[in-house]
Amino acid sequence: MVLRARLNLPRDLFPANPWAIETKTFFHGYVQESETIFALANGYLGLRASHEEDHPVVEPGTYLNGFHELRQIVYGESAYGFAKTGQTMLNCPDGKILKTFVDGEPFDIANRETPVYRRYLDLRRGLQRREVLWLTPNGKRVRIESQRLVSLMRRHLACIQLELTLEDADADIVFSSELRHRLEFVEDGDVEDPRLGAIPRSAVLQPMGRSAHDARSILSYRTTQSGLMMACGMDHLIDTPAEVAVDANQDDDVGQVTFRLRARQGEPGRITKFLAYHYNDVRPAADLRSQVGWTLDDARGTGFAALAAEQADATANFWAHADVVVEADAATQQVVRWNLFQLLQASACIDGHGIGARGLTGRTYEGHYFWDTEIFVLPFLIYTNPRLARAVLKFRHDKLDRARIRAQELGHRGALFPWRTINGDEASAYYAAGTAQYHINADIMYAMRKYVDVTGDVAFLEECGAEMLVETARLWVDLGYYNPRRGGQFCITGVTGPDEYTAIVNNNYFTNIMARENLTYAAATLRALRAENDRVYASIVRATGLQDDEIDAWEKAARLMYLPFDEDRGVHSQDDTFMDKKVWDFENTPDDNYPLMLYYHPLNIYRHQVLKQADTLLAMFLLGHEFSVDEKRRNFDYYDPLTTHDSSLSVCIQSIMANEVGYTDKALEYFQFAATMDLSDVGGNVRHGAHVASIGGAWLALIYGFGGLRDYAGNISFEPRVPDAWDGLTFHITVRNNRLRIRATPAETTYTLLDGNGLTFDHWGSPVTLSAETSTAVLANRGATV
Amino acid sequence: MVLRARLNLPRDLFPANPWAIETKTFFHGYVQESETIFALANGYLGLRASHEEDHPVVEPGTYLNGFHELRQIVYGESAYGFAKTGQTMLNCPDGKILKTFVDGEPFDIANRETPVYRRYLDLRRGLQRREVLWLTPNGKRVRIESQRLVSLMRRHLACIQLELTLEDADADIVFSSELRHRLEFVEDGDVEDPRLGAIPRSAVLQPMGRSAHDARSILSYRTTQSGLMMACGMDHLIDTPAEVAVDANQDDDVGQVTFRLRARQGEPGRITKFLAYHYNDVRPAADLRSQVGWTLDDARGTGFAALAAEQADATANFWAHADVVVEADAATQQVVRWNLFQLLQASACIDGHGIGARGLTGRTYEGHYFWDTEIFVLPFLIYTNPRLARAVLKFRHDKLDRARIRAQELGHRGALFPWRTINGDEASAYYAAGTAQYHINADIMYAMRKYVDVTGDVAFLEECGAEMLVETARLWVDLGYYNPRRGGQFCITGVTGPDEYTAIVNNNYFTNIMARENLTYAAATLRALRAENDRVYASIVRATGLQDDEIDAWEKAARLMYLPFDEDRGVHSQDDTFMDKKVWDFENTPDDNYPLMLYYHPLNIYRHQVLKQADTLLAMFLLGHEFSVDEKRRNFDYYDPLTTHDSSLSVCIQSIMANEVGYTDKALEYFQFAATMDLSDVGGNVRHGAHVASIGGAWLALIYGFGGLRDYAGNISFEPRVPDAWDGLTFHITVRNNRLRIRATPAETTYTLLDGNGLTFDHWGSPVTLSAETSTAVLANRGATV
Repeated sequence: MVLRARLNLPRDLFPANPWAIETKTFFHGYVQESETIFALANGYLGLRASHEEDHPVVEPGTYLNGFHELRQIVYGESAYGFAKTGQTMLNCPDGKILKTFVDGEPFDIANRETPVYRRYLDLRRGLQRREVLWLTPNGKRVRIESQRLVSLMRRHLACIQLELTLEDADADIVFSSELRHRLEFVEDGDVEDPRLGAIPRSAVLQPMGRSAHDARSILSYRTTQSGLMMACGMDHLIDTPAEVAVDANQDDDVGQVTFRLRARQGEPGRITKFLAYHYNDVRPAADLRSQVGWTLDDARGTGFAALAAEQADATANFWAHADVVVEADAATQQVVRWNLFQLLQASACIDGHGIGARGLTGRTYEGHYFWDTEIFVLPFLIYTNPRLARAVLKFRHDKLDRARIRAQELGHRGALFPWRTINGDEASAYYAAGTAQYHINADIMYAMRKYVDVTGDVAFLEECGAEMLVETARLWVDLGYYNPRRGGQFCITGVTGPDEYTAIVNNNYFTNIMARENLTYAAATLRALRAENDRVYASIVRATGLQDDEIDAWEKAARLMYLPFDEDRGVHSQDDTFMDKKVWDFENTPDDNYPLMLYYHPLNIYRHQVLKQADTLLAMFLLGHEFSVDEKRRNFDYYDPLTTHDSSLSVCIQSIMANEVGYTDKALEYFQFAATMDLSDVGGNVRHGAHVASIGGAWLALIYGFGGLRDYAGNISFEPRVPDAWDGLTFHITVRNNRLRIRATPAETTYTLLDGNGLTFDHWGSPVTLSAETSTAVLANRGATV
Repeated sequence: MVLRARLNLPRDLFPANPWAIETKTFFHGYVQESETIFALANGYLGLRASHEEDHPVVEPGTYLNGFHELRQIVYGESAYGFAKTGQTMLNCPDGKILKTFVDGEPFDIANRETPVYRRYLDLRRGLQRREVLWLTPNGKRVRIESQRLVSLMRRHLACIQLELTLEDADADIVFSSELRHRLEFVEDGDVEDPRLGAIPRSAVLQPMGRSAHDARSILSYRTTQSGLMMACGMDHLIDTPAEVAVDANQDDDVGQVTFRLRARQGEPGRITKFLAYHYNDVRPAADLRSQVGWTLDDARGTGFAALAAEQADATANFWAHADVVVEADAATQQVVRWNLFQLLQASACIDGHGIGARGLTGRTYEGHYFWDTEIFVLPFLIYTNPRLARAVLKFRHDKLDRARIRAQELGHRGALFPWRTINGDEASAYYAAGTAQYHINADIMYAMRKYVDVTGDVAFLEECGAEMLVETARLWVDLGYYNPRRGGQFCITGVTGPDEYTAIVNNNYFTNIMARENLTYAAATLRALRAENDRVYASIVRATGLQDDEIDAWEKAARLMYLPFDEDRGVHSQDDTFMDKKVWDFENTPDDNYPLMLYYHPLNIYRHQVLKQADTLLAMFLLGHEFSVDEKRRNFDYYDPLTTHDSSLSVCIQSIMANEVGYTDKALEYFQFAATMDLSDVGGNVRHGAHVASIGGAWLALIYGFGGLRDYAGNISFEPRVPDAWDGLTFHITVRNNRLRIRATPAETTYTLLDGNGLTFDHWGSPVTLSAETSTAVLANRGATV
């Protein structure tokens, strides 16, 4: 279908800048959007970008990855096996508050006269700055500059530094710094959107003790149902020639420290606020308060300048491994870098957790982890920071026992990973588009294979991966059956594929082919281990009760896997009955009725040929080596007009496939949608958080699409296709410790080995070898007009 | 499959008696079951059979048909068009309480010494009696006899008469009569059963004033959300030679009247309690209290004896029109008569309402009306009391506007009747087995056609029916489409058929063929009206905006309706994909795991060939004239082994079909399950109410099964097949004002015209005419060995 060009954020809100998001005007209408776009996070701790003054503020989130509360899921009509307990990422006490009063007047961005206003997200240094010139009611000119960072090196730490300068008069200054557990806050009115989930409107944290001394205040809490302990604290340094009176107050829900001084014209006063958050499911609250204290001690000792330098180093290291340069215009570059920066912020300190649908920038989908992580985000991590990719996969392995239990509840052998979760339990309250998406198992195994093949980390396979392969392969064999009506082929009934505008079908093409890949890889891996590594194989048999003949069964199911094909149209049918449905009446669907799910009953949507997102085409990307370009083009031609892209996970894949089948303009158009999903607010909901998976998808569109990277079974190849509209595309990836810079123009591609011992890959079908000696190769692109 | 013979009530609990349910022992373990089995109702007012002493008591229901509260339906994940507001039949203030104290000791069935105990449901007279001989703690012999009725002639009225006789000594007697609004009561622990729905645990009635004088107490209430007003009251007569002190108390939730007397040995004291309930959605509470007063005045004036006589007349009239005699054993006859009595109780004063899934004997499914009414209960009413059948259909027409709105919400033209409702709005909170059952439209139209054809009430068609036909036919044409892949046939996608173990499929056979019938009948009816009745046709065009070419469209859709057929098996496929699924593993399913829905996730059930209830076979019963016996047998042979009968609506249909295809033993076996569903508690849940639709189905099994009645298009025919195990089967039906008694033996059938001008019907294919002159015909049955 024709994409509806809804750019809900004016493009000139943020002037083009390849290394920053900057705004010089305070827009009342975009407070909540800005809270997302300027948000800071490190994969463990996330702060939405509410102002220090705590006003104007809409969604002042402070999130800790995995810190969640449980809630009973209520059903109008329940049934056996429905997920019983929901999980919700909690909003933690807000330490971003640092109010400024001049001569008793509170500063407030929204209601004060500010001839200078500048807010700046520095993508190169990993911090946010704000500069304001305030004309106070009694006519004084006050300059307020603040900087904020969430440390990429110290996951529990965030810092704010605020510097105040009186330009033309002395004045009485008060800084009031707070750490506030918000008992309740108002959500915006968008409660009809099911994606927001059941976000609790009132606090669920129970106070568990506190401590304070000097300018430090530490609070601790326990969640009511999930049994998690959390402590948070703040400490301060103040640097001013004036005499400062410090006063501290504390109760169970608020820590407050005030600084009073008489500041003189031209003598800047600077206050630094250190914030620390720790949580755990076992430690006593007192221990956690101590840990918070140590984090604050270290930070005070280090000081803001050194922390900022550390942050700049960490960020520079990120760019060295992950930067992508689109040689087009600064606006595109800005979008690309902001996107990449979100991936950094969502993953840097991910250890022990997953990556939520909005990272740590919002609570849409209750902070749950989905398949998005593995299919859309993990490739980026594999190629830019394999250690983090491993951590994400390790998290899945940590939850394997929960997946085993879930499989049992559904009557299966093996393990079934949850469609959405924080703690490893299924939290989907609508099974037709949740639990029924069995493909989650294959998605995780697919991503794991990519990780192992690209990084060569076979040890992961031995420690964690093989066990997951056994249990997932087991599930597929149990789920499907050999259907005599399909010539004895292996059929999988009653599942939902990635496209959520069709539910509970037989033989979803994506599911079947991905299950086949899962089974094949499991069989090959376990056979190899059996042949070559007795010790590991024995440990897996102990852990899983694996029988030798099970491997045969996986191979048989894979060999006989049924893959629906529509003879009339010469394309793969999305499922057994997809082609039997009426095509959605796009012509008579008003533009305002998208996304369809907010305007039409599921029954109405399900009974039509209409896609929310790429489904068969996604399979053709993920397992692209199994299809000819002609096949891909035929399928693209059929499914593209039926796809609404109502999911943010769609246009990126469509862009890659368009590239591959030669639809260059379409590829570029789809890429632009994918890349600007958030900064142009294509989905109209960036205010609730950044679409981390879509951003991962935009990276895929650049690297796999225009860059033409392919890596099946770890065989790296490139077929760069840089559009004529771009001068070039430069990107960095790391393969088995070889860090590469690749610069492709429409005509040729330059491969440079930056670190590592060397590797061999294909360029448009011909092998290229780079080494320490020959670290650069320049090669013409096929079909390019040089 | 093999039916699991779970008879959860010991068959000797109620000794065989063709005209009564009687028990001479108080069983502690069956208090709740007895509350259902001895319940009294008249289709407007229903009283579960809790004891006068209010102990032991589990579910002391007092229900008014249609008196309901609204509640928000909560979804874990909601979506557009999901039913938003649930409806729940309320428990009204309990007036059954009439406690007896002798010498200060309360009488209590459960904890007192009672050498004589007899409880008796008199099916011939329509009342319940209880006799007790109580040995008081101080050794006195006290005889307590009570009678109770819910008037079949005065729908707002119930009465209790209690007579106490001191056999061997004088004593101080207190009667304490109450009308009690229970603020809360405990449900039993069966909360995992989704069929029970969200029954509120606390009262939702707001007091709206009260009045009292002498031995009368009247309370009035308003519901909080649904805006209904209700008043209820009690009054008393006491008849004793002793002097009586009457004392009355009242507060917002309880009316209490006590009677104290010194009774003498051998002088019976008799107290009569009159109970009245009125409700409305518009009247002020004071008006309703007045109406209650008038009902009580009338009843006091009439007296219990006359009311009981009136009740006996009404019941006798019912039996004259509806009695069925199975000449086998008294136990079978008892079951049959209790069943018929339930149909009387569910429908007698139905005006303006529907018939709930448990009538007025329990709140399972929240008192909602389903398709059960039209498909399983309405035939009985059509043949025994057409006025009531008309009222039920009229109720649907009253709610047509709600159905129009619901169709719009789902994106359709026309009207879509709710799958479950009290007030006409869809209340299904699980659309896959609720809203998706579009066949409800065709079911109602099918039943309406039967009503019109059998009774000849064409006026109903003109007043109400034609309008419903237009809107339902419209919906089908909008819902389906001409599928080029099926040779341009008309396909209906994304619906659920009657079998709830399969959901959301394409071309459910039942739905398609019933839709065809709906379309055909609509077209024929509207064509005839257009040709013959300008005035009525014009009024329908005004009401519906009917265009002339719409009728052509209905006929085209009907003509080209796609009906799935499985060539391999030579049977109709339940839907497009049913045959592609794995057969349920019955062999490895423990008996305790039925009904499957309580032990397996819907996904697990849906992906297998397994039926909850007759589906394709139900179509072959309802539209039997369209199928050969061979076809029916092939389909029976295929589907019967796959059917769990986990729905109480299944075995009755299976019995009829077994009869028709010559499986006499199976027909009898299934009939026995259908007939004893409640009195043997086959489903294990009779404690929550009588399965009214299943009871209607048991009548179908007798009359359409063994009696061999067929009536398509109003053409009455009989092919009686009385099993050799029975001496005969006698039943009464009324066709176009001709009341018939039919007695069939295995060998021959005797048709007797009891009232009416005469009619012609077929007996085993040969026409028979009865008239006032020739009122009896005796004919041999085909295939009978005389």
